[in-house]
Amino acid sequence: MAAARAQPAGPMKRPLPQEAAGELLGLLAELAAFSAPGPGVTRLLYTPEWCGAQHFLQERMAELGLEVRMDQVGNVYGRLTGSEPDGKVILTGSHIDTVVNGGRYDGAYGVAAAVTALHYLRMAFGQPLRTLEVVSFCEEEGSRFPLTFWGSGNVTGLYNGSEAAGYADAEEITLAEAMAACGLGAGVSAVRDAQFAGLAGDAGDAALGRRLIDEVPAAAASVEPESGRGFTGSAVRSDIAAYVELHIEQGITLERSFRSIGVVQAIAGQRRYLVKVSGTANHAGTTPMSLRQDALAGSAELLLALERSAVAEGDPLVATAGRLEVYPGTPNVIPGEVQFTLDIRHSQAETLERFCAALLAEFAELSGRRGLTLAVQPVLATLPAPMDQGLCTALEDICRQQGKPYRSMVSGAGHDAQLFAPRCPSAMIFVPSRAGISHSPEEYTSPEDLTAGLEVLTAMLYRLAYTDNGDTVT
Amino acid sequence: MAAARAQPAGPMKRPLPQEAAGELLGLLAELAAFSAPGPGVTRLLYTPEWCGAQHFLQERMAELGLEVRMDQVGNVYGRLTGSEPDGKVILTGSHIDTVVNGGRYDGAYGVAAAVTALHYLRMAFGQPLRTLEVVSFCEEEGSRFPLTFWGSGNVTGLYNGSEAAGYADAEEITLAEAMAACGLGAGVSAVRDAQFAGLAGDAGDAALGRRLIDEVPAAAASVEPESGRGFTGSAVRSDIAAYVELHIEQGITLERSFRSIGVVQAIAGQRRYLVKVSGTANHAGTTPMSLRQDALAGSAELLLALERSAVAEGDPLVATAGRLEVYPGTPNVIPGEVQFTLDIRHSQAETLERFCAALLAEFAELSGRRGLTLAVQPVLATLPAPMDQGLCTALEDICRQQGKPYRSMVSGAGHDAQLFAPRCPSAMIFVPSRAGISHSPEEYTSPEDLTAGLEVLTAMLYRLAYTDNGDTVT
Repeated sequence: MAAARAQPAGPMKRPLPQEAAGELLGLLAELAAFSAPGPGVTRLLYTPEWCGAQHFLQERMAELGLEVRMDQVGNVYGRLTGSEPDGKVILTGSHIDTVVNGGRYDGAYGVAAAVTALHYLRMAFGQPLRTLEVVSFCEEEGSRFPLTFWGSGNVTGLYNGSEAAGYADAEEITLAEAMAACGLGAGVSAVRDAQFAGLAGDAGDAALGRRLIDEVPAAAASVEPESGRGFTGSAVRSDIAAYVELHIEQGITLERSFRSIGVVQAIAGQRRYLVKVSGTANHAGTTPMSLRQDALAGSAELLLALERSAVAEGDPLVATAGRLEVYPGTPNVIPGEVQFTLDIRHSQAETLERFCAALLAEFAELSGRRGLTLAVQPVLATLPAPMDQGLCTALEDICRQQGKPYRSMVSGAGHDAQLFAPRCPSAMIFVPSRAGISHSPEEYTSPEDLTAGLEVLTAMLYRLAYTDNGDTVT
Repeated sequence: MAAARAQPAGPMKRPLPQEAAGELLGLLAELAAFSAPGPGVTRLLYTPEWCGAQHFLQERMAELGLEVRMDQVGNVYGRLTGSEPDGKVILTGSHIDTVVNGGRYDGAYGVAAAVTALHYLRMAFGQPLRTLEVVSFCEEEGSRFPLTFWGSGNVTGLYNGSEAAGYADAEEITLAEAMAACGLGAGVSAVRDAQFAGLAGDAGDAALGRRLIDEVPAAAASVEPESGRGFTGSAVRSDIAAYVELHIEQGITLERSFRSIGVVQAIAGQRRYLVKVSGTANHAGTTPMSLRQDALAGSAELLLALERSAVAEGDPLVATAGRLEVYPGTPNVIPGEVQFTLDIRHSQAETLERFCAALLAEFAELSGRRGLTLAVQPVLATLPAPMDQGLCTALEDICRQQGKPYRSMVSGAGHDAQLFAPRCPSAMIFVPSRAGISHSPEEYTSPEDLTAGLEVLTAMLYRLAYTDNGDTVT
């Protein structure tokens, strides 16, 4: 391994070779093969497909010269230790899980690109000044258990795994049972071997799996072998100096504006509500129009007010009623009650707060005029997560240096990066999603755009880990 | 039995005695006891409760001096034969079935009042000039099988029972099987006895049931004993000179206008449609407002157009979207498709036609402006059924003579009378429904209003069957 030498800030001396793009595309295809049957990619937390993918990544990263390990909840790391003694880590990656019948890019792209970037950086520049780590988070989507951001949430302290051990999936399998089936949790070393042997298909790999899992940091040593109900010990890390995540946009902003790269300024905060509008169910034939309290007609007025207000507020505010149910829901009965969901997002906390307050006030006024009763239940409130301005500026510099068309933007979707943003300088790089489609087998990003994202990520990691500029993030 | 004598037109010589009101209320209470468990009254076609009620009615009418019989589909008749030889019949009654957890007045009131009226008329005036018959139709609601107006439909030729024999209820019991369980259909005389014995609770009543069923008119003699799959023979009647139905309003028009009696001028025609609005499902966080094709926001605009147009058209037009479903129906996904039902009613065919055409044109325009695709599927179209103007005038005369506050009105709900209206002079009398509520255990009409309706019905039947005025309807 070459000796670590501090480089002056500036472009990487050697640009990413053509092979790196091929390596990235190959890795994406290999990961996509770990899927339950059906269209697209289905890789739910702690399923055999998921175990297979995380095992495969550990093997591949080990082959590429990284030190690998899996933490207590199944996050996988690949490490390239730096020469500086402070122990701080530049972390990059994304999540390995998918929704049911999802695509091959959401999450997996950020992981595969991080692996490729570290491989190339190690080959081209040897040991970095600052430690670089790839992370493949075990779970972000919350598709099997109601545990969105389970992977990054355990790393940042949002979750304490043992509290969630009783959560059950649609088949009444608890989180603890699902973890045990993957060889996670306590007192299950035999299961671990069997699991990895089963996935890898021969006994030799069982030993590899064993080795990979045993390479846990000190914190994990507190796992209690006698606990069969969940797991103990913490996956929390306090050594992260910066977090950089590359991800597909999952929207149409980049495609519509003909940009290859999005530099995310903030991840939008969300407010979710359940709205109930109550009127009077009555006979559709015998109740004159003037004597109705039709909960659906009233809700239609609220939905149009929602749309009108959101358009008037302007980008990046988005507001959606995605689910709506009518009671009793019979063709010849005037609806007596309607329930619908609200999902409202903006990058600035004050704007989000003001918009929601004004909207709900308008809802109350419109309902009152019709003699309808309104009940609004807050369901979720997350704060916007601003990305680090220094890192954003660095990403914009890199795009200009590489001659890539880019734009600043807000992420309307949630990402693992929003959990790191309050704790360390964090950044996100977006690449276009064709037609804005994601969470679908139709999800697609062109090889050119995938490569562009890899090039920007690699240059950013070079700057953070190999040059003096990296100091700005510690 | 007193000899039949033609009376001059005018009020009945002897008004209805106090006991008649008590008899009506008692009969309603007795009928309400024939119900499946649960709130309110549940008496679905061809269930044990239904069989019990029709059997009870036959017994009671026989006791009151009427000739009783049940036809091939389970309609029950009670006859007071007139002295005139033309064989024409003045028919009065309603239906005995209910919705699930319905009330005790919808349908049953018209049957119980008809029985009470004929009892009183026979006692007070003896044999009529024209034959009077009570009918208790087996089915109007269509709550067990998709066979709305099954009872009156078989009498008027809308249905041919054997074609519908394969219809199944929610528990996959076919109509033919359900009929056989009630002793209807062919080759089931043993079942008949057992059925009626079971309902009546002792062997003596089985003989009565046997006798009642065997008193079928000539047409029913064609029932084929070897057919086990349905029934043959016809319940159609061509001897009806007039049909008069007393019913609760099921609306709030009478209550709001402080009238005891509604003289129905017409039963509204109905158009039903299934509307499908298609847009593009997309991520609620990453899709800017300006780039959406939100099927629910678009549908909200259509629903408000529906309400606005109906209010502008004015009474008696009513328009309702009672069921609406959103796909995929997830809080964080912009709705890609919405389906909703339309139920539009008016008493005049031309108005209904014009309104629907204009509305659907507006729907198409509004959808098109948003880039949404509209598909409209007609589901039902019934013509308005005007009541006989001579009978309406006679009812208004009677209300004035009796000093009862009344109003002319349109029935927005469907009734058995609409099947007779194209075939013979037909009339409907409404009494108030408290708060307009029906199809509910809360259904209620005061004893005073129930009695008022009975008095008007009795006077009307007297006029039709005992006086020279009756000639106007033949």
